[in-house]
Amino acid sequence: MDVLQKLLAIEEIKQLKARYFRGMDTKDAALLASCFAPDASADFRGATTDPRTGINATPSSTGEVLQGGEAIVATITGALAKLQTVHHGCCPEIEITGEDTANGIWAMVDYLRMPPDSRVAEMDGWGHYIESYRRIEGKWKIQTIRLPRLRVDVRTRS
Amino acid sequence: MDVLQKLLAIEEIKQLKARYFRGMDTKDAALLASCFAPDASADFRGATTDPRTGINATPSSTGEVLQGGEAIVATITGALAKLQTVHHGCCPEIEITGEDTANGIWAMVDYLRMPPDSRVAEMDGWGHYIESYRRIEGKWKIQTIRLPRLRVDVRTRS
Amino acid sequence: MDVLQKLLAIEEIKQLKARYFRGMDTKDAALLASCFAPDASADFRGATTDPRTGINATPSSTGEVLQGGEAIVATITGALAKLQTVHHGCCPEIEITGEDTANGIWAMVDYLRMPPDSRVAEMDGWGHYIESYRRIEGKWKIQTIRLPRLRVDVRTRS
Repeated sequence: MDVLQKLLAIEEIKQLKARYFRGMDTKDAALLASCFAPDASADFRGATTDPRTGINATPSSTGEVLQGGEAIVATITGALAKLQTVHHGCCPEIEITGEDTANGIWAMVDYLRMPPDSRVAEMDGWGHYIESYRRIEGKWKIQTIRLPRLRVDVRTRS
Repeated sequence: MDVLQKLLAIEEIKQLKARYFRGMDTKDAALLASCFAPDASADFRGATTDPRTGINATPSSTGEVLQGGEAIVATITGALAKLQTVHHGCCPEIEITGEDTANGIWAMVDYLRMPPDSRVAEMDGWGHYIESYRRIEGKWKIQTIRLPRLRVDVRTRS
Repeated sequence: MDVLQKLLAIEEIKQLKARYFRGMDTKDAALLASCFAPDASADFRGATTDPRTGINATPSSTGEVLQGGEAIVATITGALAKLQTVHHGCCPEIEITGEDTANGIWAMVDYLRMPPDSRVAEMDGWGHYIESYRRIEGKWKIQTIRLPRLRVDVRTRS
C-alpha cells in the first residue's frame, strides 16, 4: 500500500474506533454492531476487576472470551444497559500490516456508574486496547480486541 | 476534493479544535476567537447542569443559543474567567462534506474548579461535541457547536 | 516537504508520543528510551507540585532540567518505579518546521498512585506538553519537552 493509502486507512481505523466508543456510550447498538467483523473475538477477562479487592464490576461480560460480532455486541449492550458509561481512547498506534489488515494499540479510560440498587457504585478503569482490524468490502472492522489494564478502581456502596 | 486534500483538511480541523480547547483552558481569548466563524452559533443549553440535582454550574453561559463568534467568545471567557478549567477532546469523527464544509463529532470531558466563594465547588462533565466547520479564506473555523452530555457531576460546598 | 510527507511526519510524531506514554505507564524502559534524542532535554520543574500546598509528589525527578536522553529515562523510570501511573495525551498540534524538525503541543493528564508507605497517596495533574522533535536516521525523536500545568492535585494520607 502506498503512503497515501496507508494514511487514509489509519484515519478510517481511528474513526472506526471512535464509532465503537460512541456506540457504547450513547447505547446505539446498531452503531456498535457496525464496528465488528462477523467472526470477531473480544477478550475482556479481568478488565473490570479491582485487583485490590477482587470485586468485578461487570461479571456478566468479562467471564470468558466472546466469539462473534453479534455475541460481542449482545454481551456488551446487555452488561451496560442500566449503566451510565464513558469510554475515551487516545494515542492510537495503528500499523497497517497488509492490504486489508492492521493492528492497533489505544490508551483508554472508562468510567462506569451503576444504578442505585447495585452493590457496586462506580468503576474507573485505565489500560490499553490491543486490537487487530480487517477490511471487509471496503470497510474496516474490529477483528480482535483485548484490554490489559493499568488500574481498575471499583467503589462499592457503604 | 481528492484523498490527500481531505486528509489535510481533517488534520487542520483537528488542530483547530485543539486550539479551541487550549484557548479556553489557558485563557487565551485571542486564540479562542480565532477558532470561530463570524456568524457561528453555540448551543451549550443544559451542558453544565447536573441532572440529579438540577444545579447549573455556569448558568451565565448556557441559558440560550449564542449567536456570532464574538458573542460566543465573550460569553465563554466571561463565564470561565474566575474558574480553573480543563477541556479534553478525543476520537474525532471528521467528515468533509464539501470544498469548504465539514462536520465533526468529538468525545469530550471537562473539569471546572470554581473559586472559593462559589456555592458550586467543581463540575465534571462528559459528552460529545457535535460541530460543523467552514473554511474561510483558507482557514477552517467552527460554524456550529453543541454539546449533548452523557454525564454531568456538580459538587457543591457542604 | 510536500503535503503527503508532512501528513506522514505528523502521524509518525503522534505515534512517537504514544510510545512515550505507553513506555512510561507499562514500565517499558527500552520503549521509553527509544523516544528521545541522545541530546534531549526535559524540563519538568514544578510539574508535580500542588500549588495550593507546595507539596511535590515526585521531587526526585522534577528538581532541575534533565539533560540527555539516557539521563531523562533513568530519572523518569527511577521516580516512577514504585508508582502506578497513567498518562494520556490528546489534541496534538504538530507543526513541521523543516525537513527533520518539528514542534508540538499536547493537552495531557496524568494520574499517579503512590505505594502504601508514601506520605503522598495520589497526584492528578493536567497541562500541556510543549515539545520539539528531530528526525534522526529516519526516526522522529523527542528533542525537548516541558510541561506547564493547568492544575495539580496532590492528596496526602490522613
